[in-house]
Amino acid sequence: MPERLGPARETPLFECVALIGIGLIGSSIARAARHLNLAHQIVAIDASDAVVARVRELGIADEATTDVAAGVRDADLVILCVPVGVCGRVAEAMKPGLKPGCIVSDVGSVKASVVAQVQPHLPAGVHFVPAHPVAGTEHSGPDAGFSTLFHNRWCILTPPEDAADEAVERVRAFWAAMGSNVEVMSAQHHDLVLAITSHVPHLIAYNIVGTAADLETVTQSEVIKFSAGGFRDFTRIAASDPTMWRDIFLHNKDAVLEMLGRLNEDIALLARAIRWGEGDKLHDLFTRTRAIRRGIISLGQETPEPDFGRRRESQ
Amino acid sequence: MPERLGPARETPLFECVALIGIGLIGSSIARAARHLNLAHQIVAIDASDAVVARVRELGIADEATTDVAAGVRDADLVILCVPVGVCGRVAEAMKPGLKPGCIVSDVGSVKASVVAQVQPHLPAGVHFVPAHPVAGTEHSGPDAGFSTLFHNRWCILTPPEDAADEAVERVRAFWAAMGSNVEVMSAQHHDLVLAITSHVPHLIAYNIVGTAADLETVTQSEVIKFSAGGFRDFTRIAASDPTMWRDIFLHNKDAVLEMLGRLNEDIALLARAIRWGEGDKLHDLFTRTRAIRRGIISLGQETPEPDFGRRRESQ
Repeated sequence: MPERLGPARETPLFECVALIGIGLIGSSIARAARHLNLAHQIVAIDASDAVVARVRELGIADEATTDVAAGVRDADLVILCVPVGVCGRVAEAMKPGLKPGCIVSDVGSVKASVVAQVQPHLPAGVHFVPAHPVAGTEHSGPDAGFSTLFHNRWCILTPPEDAADEAVERVRAFWAAMGSNVEVMSAQHHDLVLAITSHVPHLIAYNIVGTAADLETVTQSEVIKFSAGGFRDFTRIAASDPTMWRDIFLHNKDAVLEMLGRLNEDIALLARAIRWGEGDKLHDLFTRTRAIRRGIISLGQETPEPDFGRRRESQ
Repeated sequence: MPERLGPARETPLFECVALIGIGLIGSSIARAARHLNLAHQIVAIDASDAVVARVRELGIADEATTDVAAGVRDADLVILCVPVGVCGRVAEAMKPGLKPGCIVSDVGSVKASVVAQVQPHLPAGVHFVPAHPVAGTEHSGPDAGFSTLFHNRWCILTPPEDAADEAVERVRAFWAAMGSNVEVMSAQHHDLVLAITSHVPHLIAYNIVGTAADLETVTQSEVIKFSAGGFRDFTRIAASDPTMWRDIFLHNKDAVLEMLGRLNEDIALLARAIRWGEGDKLHDLFTRTRAIRRGIISLGQETPEPDFGRRRESQ
């Protein structure tokens, strides 16, 4: 339902936008930018010849190339849409092509590491405004994207303290135009918030599914058969892209380990309450967690889909 | 859509069925048994005068009473539909009323503890066939039940080794008639299987929501705001009934602590892999967990609703 995006702009926000990495996110930005007239020209850059060929077939960009430096040459906004682990290498490759005044951004689920990887490669006069659209689906590749992916989702910007206000505002306007609610915070704070709201939940889900698969007393077919009792929803996120998630954990190590440590302390308390039959402690916690649930419902962030932040269907 | 239940039987399976505890499960059994003509007479027993009055208003039983011993007097099937923690007390109360040859069953999410609590109170000549329908919703009380709750859900029977075959077959037929897929296993094995497929996932969900609520570096409103990144689905099960879940953890202590221990060992390995940057180990696990996910999808146990075994709407 592209009509949810609202009408196209009469004048584009940017002259030329270059997208590096045309997977789900990159191709969704291309489609939305085209649909909303956010850029006069859209350049798609990808390391894979096959992806570049497919982008040409789909016609979702004005130009498509595997040459990073050449691809970013005319861009006044460059967005890295690659796994967090390769941001540094990509930044190095694009460095010779960046034009003065250009804004560089990204879409990574981790921010401090991206800043540390990318910043050293940016020439003076190039602005850096890291971004994280909290959106996605289970699917990947240039065919998976759709123009409304970011509609009504949060996009977090983590500009460095010395970032030019105008550059931040232009990136904010870009995401707001695609329907996102834009929030600004520090990269460090972003990484803490996402560690508890996204990264650790994913880690736990992967882990519980792995533990279940290794049991010798319970067969895998029993786990599958009786998964409706709660386990099933854990498997859903445990089917997410392994490479993307590996990079997230490796690059948000400190915050993930800190949150995991706290979680383990709390689990130890719960286990102790169970072992010693302290029903009141359990009841208190189970009652308290309802308040957060109510908060989510009242903020309209509850949806019937168990998408863990990923859209299941285009809309 | 009661038509999914199939036609009513010409002759009932039981002369008189007594249900003790008329909440979601008890009232759903009453409705299904009535609809399918599984019993000539349905007696509803509840400790609460208000519930008994409501059952009379709803007309979902032929008789409703707070007197346990009197209520079970004519029953050839008695089903305990009370929290796992009070099964022993209820069994003691019904003991004087049970007639010879009667079958006693239950619906608890834990089985070994229920057997230990109930068995001592059963006179010789009374059969005991514990059962666990893996079904439910977030709602409770006699108004919450519906006749198709058990349709296409698993029901696990855990008869003692010396149980009379005929009694087991009659309970199996009762649940099969309500649309359930019936499986038989030992009470001990049931408690292990459910610990990993249901109890520990719920415990983890309660725990992660509790941990998030206690953070001093991330505000509760941030947790709520960015919950779509994965956290949201944990809050859903963390809103389940506190009393029911307290009893489950206290009464499946050994299996829950064993599974939690294994989970913690595996989390420790994962944390170590993250700390030391062992990306291959992470990638291997994340790839392996996809197989279980595929198994769930191919077994048709995947649904679009994140219901954690609970139906969200009657159907």
